[in-house]
Amino acid sequence: MNAGPDLPAILAGRERITAHIHRTPVMTCRSLDEMANARIFFKCENLQRTGSFKMRGASNAIFSLSEKDAAFGVVTHSSGNHAAAIACAARLRGIPAWVVMPENSSRAKLAAVEGYGGYVTLCAPTLEARESTANKLVAGSGATLIHPYNDDRIIAGQATAAVELLEEITELDMVIAPVSGGGLLSGTAIAAKSMRPAIRVVGGEPKNADDAFRSLESGEIEPAAAGKTMADGLRATLCERTFAIIRERVDEIATVTEEEILQAMRAVWERMKIIIEPSSAVAVAPLLTRRVRAEGMRVGVILSGGNLDLDHLPFGAPPH
Amino acid sequence: MNAGPDLPAILAGRERITAHIHRTPVMTCRSLDEMANARIFFKCENLQRTGSFKMRGASNAIFSLSEKDAAFGVVTHSSGNHAAAIACAARLRGIPAWVVMPENSSRAKLAAVEGYGGYVTLCAPTLEARESTANKLVAGSGATLIHPYNDDRIIAGQATAAVELLEEITELDMVIAPVSGGGLLSGTAIAAKSMRPAIRVVGGEPKNADDAFRSLESGEIEPAAAGKTMADGLRATLCERTFAIIRERVDEIATVTEEEILQAMRAVWERMKIIIEPSSAVAVAPLLTRRVRAEGMRVGVILSGGNLDLDHLPFGAPPH
Repeated sequence: MNAGPDLPAILAGRERITAHIHRTPVMTCRSLDEMANARIFFKCENLQRTGSFKMRGASNAIFSLSEKDAAFGVVTHSSGNHAAAIACAARLRGIPAWVVMPENSSRAKLAAVEGYGGYVTLCAPTLEARESTANKLVAGSGATLIHPYNDDRIIAGQATAAVELLEEITELDMVIAPVSGGGLLSGTAIAAKSMRPAIRVVGGEPKNADDAFRSLESGEIEPAAAGKTMADGLRATLCERTFAIIRERVDEIATVTEEEILQAMRAVWERMKIIIEPSSAVAVAPLLTRRVRAEGMRVGVILSGGNLDLDHLPFGAPPH
Repeated sequence: MNAGPDLPAILAGRERITAHIHRTPVMTCRSLDEMANARIFFKCENLQRTGSFKMRGASNAIFSLSEKDAAFGVVTHSSGNHAAAIACAARLRGIPAWVVMPENSSRAKLAAVEGYGGYVTLCAPTLEARESTANKLVAGSGATLIHPYNDDRIIAGQATAAVELLEEITELDMVIAPVSGGGLLSGTAIAAKSMRPAIRVVGGEPKNADDAFRSLESGEIEPAAAGKTMADGLRATLCERTFAIIRERVDEIATVTEEEILQAMRAVWERMKIIIEPSSAVAVAPLLTRRVRAEGMRVGVILSGGNLDLDHLPFGAPPH
């Protein structure tokens, strides 16, 4: 069983990436505290470079490469925040990044990757096509494949958000992060439990994509749920590596409905005046709905990102 | 001619309100800097308590009242950010606030004032009805009327945003604030020119509500323009007090179209991941359009507020 990166590896990652990422602010909000009956400290990775925490793991992976390996560039397949982060981090290191994206990706997502200087390679919209296209690119170029979460360097990088949060805000009772493939949640759990063993670590997950919840229940990795969720960053499933870490170190997975995600997202927009994507709201909703027991506690929340299409917002038109 | 509050009065105001307001962050954004070809420092009053800079002036006015006067409460007429700020500041002082609002105000605006504990008094949607209703309330209660900008305590309070910005960011070449009734712009101009005489002070104004621009051209206060603007916080006109200050201390009023306001607002949402209302974008648009000469300069921008109705956003539906 892979135990994931340890705290020294995470702290080494922090040193490695500190010049390339933003130290994001920790925000608080009186009215959300009242709704949750808790004291919430929001780690604002929506304000991170490229608009999500993915920049942490991508930078750590890319700046971990040897000079020789780096020179051949990197490859990844992703249609979301990891793709943009890999493109940005590769540019900072001055190496090429090839990003395999499904041909039905939105123009906005393609533009984000290209805006950071990544080379987009389109493929059919299936996981098989993505993987085989990425593998062909690797074989042809000698570039290094960087998986979005099945990689200790990625997990160590994502963990640095929790490190900053726990250094800045003392005596946290709980920390919540969204879970998808599990890179962020497993990194958060390793960092938080290493720095503060008594802390409770909770994952937030959409009910409509509750494979992590079910996997912890059953004790083995469950397939993706069939449901649709607006939290489009949370559709991946755990891998053996992240499952092992989460099983050992995460206390609870809290699932939330689409309506609860929407309400939490709206509350953050309206009350905090910051833009978070639905995936971030998945870590807020368990508090606002009081789904997790946090009464009177000091709770850290990782707001994972702020990228979404302003022309397709989930807010309804006014009632007729 | 009233010269407005001087720097000592502004600094006294800052002392008075510091416990009641947030010290808002100053944010920067690489991609907006590139669009403007300048280095921009955003003073985030959208993150201020009640969601706008109005909390500064309202707190200064309300905490300036004698114990005896304060006991009778305060009255104002406003359907926007000033109303919410007065209600909030009054509650902090533990005194009643009556807010006269037109009967066609949106539910969201009424709820904001009531949420802060203000007493809403509805009236017909005309300026005459507002004023007469407010005057009746004052006559009947002994409460103090607090005008949204024709008041040195208000102007001194609004000026504290610029004080914080100039203390934190040195060597600014220019500062831009939106202009409506002129409380924020005149306070900003007094503070900025007092602290840094060589600084250029610019007002941003919608072309469709360009009365301040025309007033500076003609040398007398011009009536409101007939046009409609999405910057609904900027529909008031200057008063003698603010006009005199702005004439003396503001170097330029830059006007921007509705499309430019929309694009600037969208750029801030997308790139900075913070929510600003259209009135704030009016101070950003002159830079992004390069309407004002700011090439290579260090420019401060007062983002005035972040209150808007998420069910009526100005972003279009996707093209068919």
